[in-house]
Amino acid sequence: MSLITRPDDVRFDLLGIGNAIVDILAHSDEGFLEGHGLNKGTMTLIDVDKAEELYGDMGAAKEVSGGSVANTVAAAGALGARVAYIGKVRDDQLGTIFRHDIHAVGVHFETPPSTQGAATARCFVMVTRDAHRTMATHLGACVELGPEDIDTELVAQTWITYLEGYIWDPPRAKEALRVAIDAAHGAGRLVALTLSDPFCVERHRTEFRQLVEGSVDILFANEHEAMSLFEVDDVWEAVTRLQAIGRIAAVTRSDQGSVVVTPEGVFEVPAVHADQVLDTTGAGDLYAAGFLYGLTQGWDAERCALAGAAAAAEIISHIGARPEADLTEVVRLAIGEEVGT
Amino acid sequence: MSLITRPDDVRFDLLGIGNAIVDILAHSDEGFLEGHGLNKGTMTLIDVDKAEELYGDMGAAKEVSGGSVANTVAAAGALGARVAYIGKVRDDQLGTIFRHDIHAVGVHFETPPSTQGAATARCFVMVTRDAHRTMATHLGACVELGPEDIDTELVAQTWITYLEGYIWDPPRAKEALRVAIDAAHGAGRLVALTLSDPFCVERHRTEFRQLVEGSVDILFANEHEAMSLFEVDDVWEAVTRLQAIGRIAAVTRSDQGSVVVTPEGVFEVPAVHADQVLDTTGAGDLYAAGFLYGLTQGWDAERCALAGAAAAAEIISHIGARPEADLTEVVRLAIGEEVGT
Repeated sequence: MSLITRPDDVRFDLLGIGNAIVDILAHSDEGFLEGHGLNKGTMTLIDVDKAEELYGDMGAAKEVSGGSVANTVAAAGALGARVAYIGKVRDDQLGTIFRHDIHAVGVHFETPPSTQGAATARCFVMVTRDAHRTMATHLGACVELGPEDIDTELVAQTWITYLEGYIWDPPRAKEALRVAIDAAHGAGRLVALTLSDPFCVERHRTEFRQLVEGSVDILFANEHEAMSLFEVDDVWEAVTRLQAIGRIAAVTRSDQGSVVVTPEGVFEVPAVHADQVLDTTGAGDLYAAGFLYGLTQGWDAERCALAGAAAAAEIISHIGARPEADLTEVVRLAIGEEVGT
Repeated sequence: MSLITRPDDVRFDLLGIGNAIVDILAHSDEGFLEGHGLNKGTMTLIDVDKAEELYGDMGAAKEVSGGSVANTVAAAGALGARVAYIGKVRDDQLGTIFRHDIHAVGVHFETPPSTQGAATARCFVMVTRDAHRTMATHLGACVELGPEDIDTELVAQTWITYLEGYIWDPPRAKEALRVAIDAAHGAGRLVALTLSDPFCVERHRTEFRQLVEGSVDILFANEHEAMSLFEVDDVWEAVTRLQAIGRIAAVTRSDQGSVVVTPEGVFEVPAVHADQVLDTTGAGDLYAAGFLYGLTQGWDAERCALAGAAAAAEIISHIGARPEADLTEVVRLAIGEEVGT
């Protein structure tokens, strides 16, 4: 039984709205993180001076397009979903890289770049030996995203508009998201949200609680974010609270798999084994991609979660949060049927 | 017995002079290469219009600092050699990435960036399923490298000045290299050269022959380049020709290992097994790094070649031409003794 049913009259399955970021990935150790006041496993916002200091100190890196929801839409696009994205880069080389990479997987992305002010956002991703990633983000041009960038017609033509929690950080983005949520619900469409990061939940808990209880149709969170949202210290207590709200939620639990909360019940789905775990950057983003793709295919909760788990297993097996393997094949193997058509 | 002995009065072991390039790596297939007139396994020079067309058509990519000799010095630096580099970037974001990555491994790099004209050079690296790489390079700011960029004092303070064949492509670089060769030999130092690419040998065969017969103390070439240099179709014929010249040459033969030609004789050394072969970009560059590092350690021909083979095996096991594993450990395992001090 389909978890939910896609209407026939949509142009896009998924529209992501998020911080458009290029990741700068390097190996690091715990001492480096401590020395720079970074909290292992989380995301810290940094200003341009701190960004230059950190970059000067960190090791040789590689650059890969990132941004949480951008990673999700890129992967959903690679799987075959019809996807679009709204986010702000500058008209610089990193902005060109971001635009190229998201276009290359077929994502509709037409947000005009800013032509002055801060450079395209960078996220310094420090991967420790245990494959955990610690992030420091300089939001750069992302702070320019405003209501004028929300193409409400595009929102109305899209089944699910997917927002990232991180985008509550830049000041004008909140207004933009309010416009997007109203446009989606006004057209009878769905709104999905990822809570992004436990510290992000701390920064915006009141607003996130109102959103989850009021506007959000599909919620993605890892167990720490879900517990932080409700200020509880047991994941099952958070699940109970989500159940009471009565919409769809997927709570990821690393190698313990995920829990899907639906009006019909709660489903526990195991993780998919990864042959090697090199970098957990983007695991949550890819889980959401697989899950949302599953929704477009009319799959039930368990298969959606399994598709998410398979996509997450691919991304953690290499450095960077954009897929390297053929994701359609990865998900096909997990689900046991054809994908990508 | 040491292959050659390093003098005590040098400040740097190795100075690389080459095209300073950022690689843009993506998976591709043979049809794409043919459709864009690219010759599989080789490097094609492209202008800015072709670069934009190619980038627009190619898949999602990742960016890693590259440049053949820059890869070599970065890896030699990671191994513990004292290394410097001369090459031209622009004062743009890709130039900043190049500078950061080479500084991060301890390479002395002070060539001033150009402040106008073409952007930092990009090499589009298309990796096919068989792990072969096909390259299209837009030289950009590299064409600005000239004799004024050669710090002859730095050359005189360096044991081995290492030149890439590719740098004969930009017009003013030849003059720069002549200055560098004269400065090195004038100070009683050594000159090393890599032939870079069979087509590069075709473009500059006369000059390369004169160099190899006159100015080059240590030559690196793969078997195709060595055969092209002497216009012979048997690698052993090329080896015989190199032997007659009477200096040091290392001829790499992919999984058939390498052949080291010295005044004392010819040594065949096997390849080092790679657990997986994902991308052969940089195999030759890393072979040279291990080999040159071996020279700084006073190793014999076989151990130099083995260190080169071990470094090459690391680089082909992942995407990109800068090492991801701890190279000192990789070489230590192959050689059986401590490395990196």
